[in-house]
Amino acid sequence: MKEREGTKKISLAHGSGGKLTHNLIKEVFLTNFENPLLKPLSDSAIIDLNGRKIAFTTDSYTVTPIFFPGGDIGKLAICGTVNDLAVMGAKPLHLSCGYIIEEGLDYEALVKITKSMSETAKIAGVQIVTGDTKVVEKGKGDKIFINTSGIGICEYEFKEVQIGDKILISGGIGDHEIAILAARESLGLETEIKSDCAPLWDLISQVLTSSHKVKFMRDPTRGGIATVLNEITESKNFGILLHEENLPIKEEVKGVCALLGFDPLYLANEGKVIIVVASEDADELINVMQEHTLGKDAQIIGEVIDNKNLSSIHGKVCIKTKAGGTRIVDMMVGEQLPRIC
Amino acid sequence: MKEREGTKKISLAHGSGGKLTHNLIKEVFLTNFENPLLKPLSDSAIIDLNGRKIAFTTDSYTVTPIFFPGGDIGKLAICGTVNDLAVMGAKPLHLSCGYIIEEGLDYEALVKITKSMSETAKIAGVQIVTGDTKVVEKGKGDKIFINTSGIGICEYEFKEVQIGDKILISGGIGDHEIAILAARESLGLETEIKSDCAPLWDLISQVLTSSHKVKFMRDPTRGGIATVLNEITESKNFGILLHEENLPIKEEVKGVCALLGFDPLYLANEGKVIIVVASEDADELINVMQEHTLGKDAQIIGEVIDNKNLSSIHGKVCIKTKAGGTRIVDMMVGEQLPRIC
Repeated sequence: MKEREGTKKISLAHGSGGKLTHNLIKEVFLTNFENPLLKPLSDSAIIDLNGRKIAFTTDSYTVTPIFFPGGDIGKLAICGTVNDLAVMGAKPLHLSCGYIIEEGLDYEALVKITKSMSETAKIAGVQIVTGDTKVVEKGKGDKIFINTSGIGICEYEFKEVQIGDKILISGGIGDHEIAILAARESLGLETEIKSDCAPLWDLISQVLTSSHKVKFMRDPTRGGIATVLNEITESKNFGILLHEENLPIKEEVKGVCALLGFDPLYLANEGKVIIVVASEDADELINVMQEHTLGKDAQIIGEVIDNKNLSSIHGKVCIKTKAGGTRIVDMMVGEQLPRIC
Repeated sequence: MKEREGTKKISLAHGSGGKLTHNLIKEVFLTNFENPLLKPLSDSAIIDLNGRKIAFTTDSYTVTPIFFPGGDIGKLAICGTVNDLAVMGAKPLHLSCGYIIEEGLDYEALVKITKSMSETAKIAGVQIVTGDTKVVEKGKGDKIFINTSGIGICEYEFKEVQIGDKILISGGIGDHEIAILAARESLGLETEIKSDCAPLWDLISQVLTSSHKVKFMRDPTRGGIATVLNEITESKNFGILLHEENLPIKEEVKGVCALLGFDPLYLANEGKVIIVVASEDADELINVMQEHTLGKDAQIIGEVIDNKNLSSIHGKVCIKTKAGGTRIVDMMVGEQLPRIC
């Protein structure tokens, strides 16, 4: 920024959830908003309010189209924020809702989205307790953007990730991003794939009551599971090894990926959770998840490994392919598809 | 969306803070998000978390231009949310920050706004603890929109508004909206007026420790003091009488209003608070406020009156003009100027 000031511009990739987003957060936000509560950069901040730990999170939703197979921007805004609290081991309680509406939006579309938020909130067991509405001129927005912030009460303390821990996923990956992709009329892509958009607290609370050895949880949205796993190993003395053959991916998702050159590891999900748990509890957690509607395709997909003697992959995420090779899975650079959430 | 139902569209006035916003909130949000915490429709929701009352609020900022005399969208986003907590008698503590950036925004503008948020947060004594960044395509947003949600701890319990109570304002009205208006290049309006944009907790906490007879507080933003006062009397058995001669309004604001046909009662403020207090404490509170930088022009501007025998103005807000007449001050219909906050 020093030399040719003003020439550097924000690009779509800055909002991708990948490498540029991470750099932006570090360069601009962490340096200016510096404080110990923000620093962990988790999905929610953990705040001590008079000895009670609460989780606080925010997300703005700009998905296009606003209605898509499996959901709409309203359902997504509830699920996303509920899940950001849930993966911190916090029971989601209260949500805010801020609308930025483009002038000319059909009143009925707003009603439909609001009803969808209300229904999803009921399913998730949360209340929308405060809100705000802004309207911008036609051409200065895109139908509707929704911000939901949320508060939850922390019910679980995560342990430290260790070598040997297993990596679990609650189900098939990539459905949300492929559903959004297919819903964009211009692509003319025909598929039956629906967004996996769902509130995860019920599943997660069952996981957390079944094992006291859960080390980490995260919902792999923008940037996909590759980005989440890279966050786990960042500045750590261990790596992660995934097994491609164990990754639950629908055939149809694989097909679209092959067609368009997408890597499913980077596809966004909106109703999945990645769990790191002590090896001895992994099978039990898979059983618990598979009995839940939202976890029936749960799988152990990899493990935390000691790769510090392998300088080329030290602290990296790697995947053992079906063909038998091993490749590094880096954080996403640029992005596959903008505005998926 | 049915076909003729779809003819009803969201207009800019739905985001004005006036009558259409109120109708929208009641028709769409209150009916769908129905719950006792949302129902009071205050600036913040008051939540009981294990016996501790906390305030929770959200606001999205879409002001244009994003830099204006006296502030910028970042400063505004901190002040607005801090003030929404403060007027509920809650000490503001933790804020979230959600950016929706239009592709192509100068990186330096983002840095400048972020620095401004950081500085204002320091002055206000709050921490930004969680955030989110989305980027939308050029032409699908307008430089930057910011959502800030906030949490505070309730430190004061307001009493019931009664006939005889005094209405106070902490200073001159209309500065913010006139500053925004003048900053819009197309208008070619030259004025020295700066936005009054400021965090009010310090002033408000001094007020609340000086009197235990404060009944109500609100920061008169969109819709101005007319809208706030109408909210106080809504479905109540009393009215409010303002005295035009006591209203603190800068000569320059009056001048612009006269020129453009604006009514200062409907102009947005971003660093002012309206206070309803028992008559016997009113003078003392004016003294307390006038000793504070942000309250030096504080005035008693009216009182809560018993007008139930005057059917034409029962439960209404009225103003006694300098000329000696009395007119009704209704809630704003439509809006004077879009996107002022």
